[in-house]
Amino acid sequence: MSESLATQSSVRPVRIEVCDVGPRDGLQGLARFVPTARKIRLIEDLADAGLRSIEVASFVSANAIPQMRDGAEVLGGLRRRPEVTLAAFIPNLRGLEDAARLHVDRVTIATYASEEFSKRNVNATVAEANERMRAIARAAEQGGIAARGYVSCAIDCPFTGPVAPARVAELAEQVLDAGCAEVFLADTTGRGTTASVARLVDCVLERVPAARLGVHFHDTFGQGLANVATCIERGIRRIDASIAGLGGCPTARGAAGNVATEDVLLLLEGLGIDAGIDVARVAAIGAELCDDLGIRNDSKAGRALASRADESRRVV
Amino acid sequence: MSESLATQSSVRPVRIEVCDVGPRDGLQGLARFVPTARKIRLIEDLADAGLRSIEVASFVSANAIPQMRDGAEVLGGLRRRPEVTLAAFIPNLRGLEDAARLHVDRVTIATYASEEFSKRNVNATVAEANERMRAIARAAEQGGIAARGYVSCAIDCPFTGPVAPARVAELAEQVLDAGCAEVFLADTTGRGTTASVARLVDCVLERVPAARLGVHFHDTFGQGLANVATCIERGIRRIDASIAGLGGCPTARGAAGNVATEDVLLLLEGLGIDAGIDVARVAAIGAELCDDLGIRNDSKAGRALASRADESRRVV
Repeated sequence: MSESLATQSSVRPVRIEVCDVGPRDGLQGLARFVPTARKIRLIEDLADAGLRSIEVASFVSANAIPQMRDGAEVLGGLRRRPEVTLAAFIPNLRGLEDAARLHVDRVTIATYASEEFSKRNVNATVAEANERMRAIARAAEQGGIAARGYVSCAIDCPFTGPVAPARVAELAEQVLDAGCAEVFLADTTGRGTTASVARLVDCVLERVPAARLGVHFHDTFGQGLANVATCIERGIRRIDASIAGLGGCPTARGAAGNVATEDVLLLLEGLGIDAGIDVARVAAIGAELCDDLGIRNDSKAGRALASRADESRRVV
Repeated sequence: MSESLATQSSVRPVRIEVCDVGPRDGLQGLARFVPTARKIRLIEDLADAGLRSIEVASFVSANAIPQMRDGAEVLGGLRRRPEVTLAAFIPNLRGLEDAARLHVDRVTIATYASEEFSKRNVNATVAEANERMRAIARAAEQGGIAARGYVSCAIDCPFTGPVAPARVAELAEQVLDAGCAEVFLADTTGRGTTASVARLVDCVLERVPAARLGVHFHDTFGQGLANVATCIERGIRRIDASIAGLGGCPTARGAAGNVATEDVLLLLEGLGIDAGIDVARVAAIGAELCDDLGIRNDSKAGRALASRADESRRVV
């Protein structure tokens, strides 16, 4: 399959959009506040390395996620570039107002494939969360902001276990019907493996076009990159990833972040897919960030590439 | 593809042999000597958890790899079980004598898909390494010991770069012709990605039956599990893996070990393949080993599962 894709790509170049969610989904789990200037620098660095889609902020309550309280300053301090799409997560219409005021290119909003998770996460039924999403998507459309909808717990709910692919497909279709430009399947718990991900994607693709579908994997159980590969084989062209595999909660043993951007970029490179991103530079950015924050670099590709760069510096 | 395999498996159960190479390929890179009793305990623990194939020793020069100097004591101290195949790596006929004397079930021997690597690693041309392999395989056959041949640098050579799949296929065929029961493709540098691995396996399968082919991935660049998934899709049923992702050299930044046994087991579980191995127990073994040795657990599945076990212990 990989080979057929590689063959394909020599005829018709495959384009993949890699969105780095590190500055938002990655950093938000860190207990120690990352200075606004360091956040801005990370985003600028990623854009310099060729990333064209970056999730940079979350307009949620500062009490709920203190790490994200400086979203307005981050967006205000960034040098804007027409070729880079900056996204922000928003939970409600008020968040949309913030995003609009700060000229965010795209808002990301969520719905849930599990009633229990929805209840615990946003204190709403899935029907209510869907209604909220529709209202936001409608308002975003009127305001000329693109909206991307996430179906959380697309594989598994931490409270109630496995989720039926048909239910996710139904929700994915509703996300697009609501006016979202794209819908993303999020494996919140990282429980997905190639088999369950393949079943899910095949089921969703019966109701949603591949061009508007994306995936977001947490790598809690080490299955993230294999899952990404499975999705690319199935025609998915939008992949979330996180610099240095950031995410999860580093203070909790066993927690893990998103699939690492560096690892995904090597996979794409192998497939002959040119994402226009300098992977060595991304690895250096991740290594430096982890050094600065005093956290472990959770990208194996990132660690290996950055250590090689060190070696060549030593030789020089 | 995964789905077709899952569907298949409901008709005709797929059997996969997972060989844990942790006690050999995993431990050998550790600078600090692991006590013989701890090595024995690791092997016994893995067998208790259901592993039926374990690489336990290496009969190489004690000067070259001091960590492996107690192979005879390890094999002498183990409780033997008819259902568990114990393997030892040997570099020459003298190693075969050691292995025979200690009733090793299977010896593993190597050849090289790169002249430069062969020269630097064993100070021999590939033709000489092949001749050595043939002599060992012949003697092993006469002694009633199974031999498994590895083609190292099957994707890439650290000194000379990418390796042609056709060259690897030729060598793989020679390994079987030499009298080895199985041939393994080893991605020594971890540079393989799904595309290059797919090309390699497709090429090798033109000359070698899938039933006699196995793979051995290092996870240096985080591609290991995706590569394993690609191989399983292609009918490969023999997979090397290492408890806690052990291997490489923990003192060298950026080095990484083999693909982790725990991560592979979750992949198989997702595919509906029953390897007869208790993954929670394997995770606990890996976590305890890393604690004892004071090293990082490099299996994400292992960390996540072991931390969950801790949680449930806390609840109880």
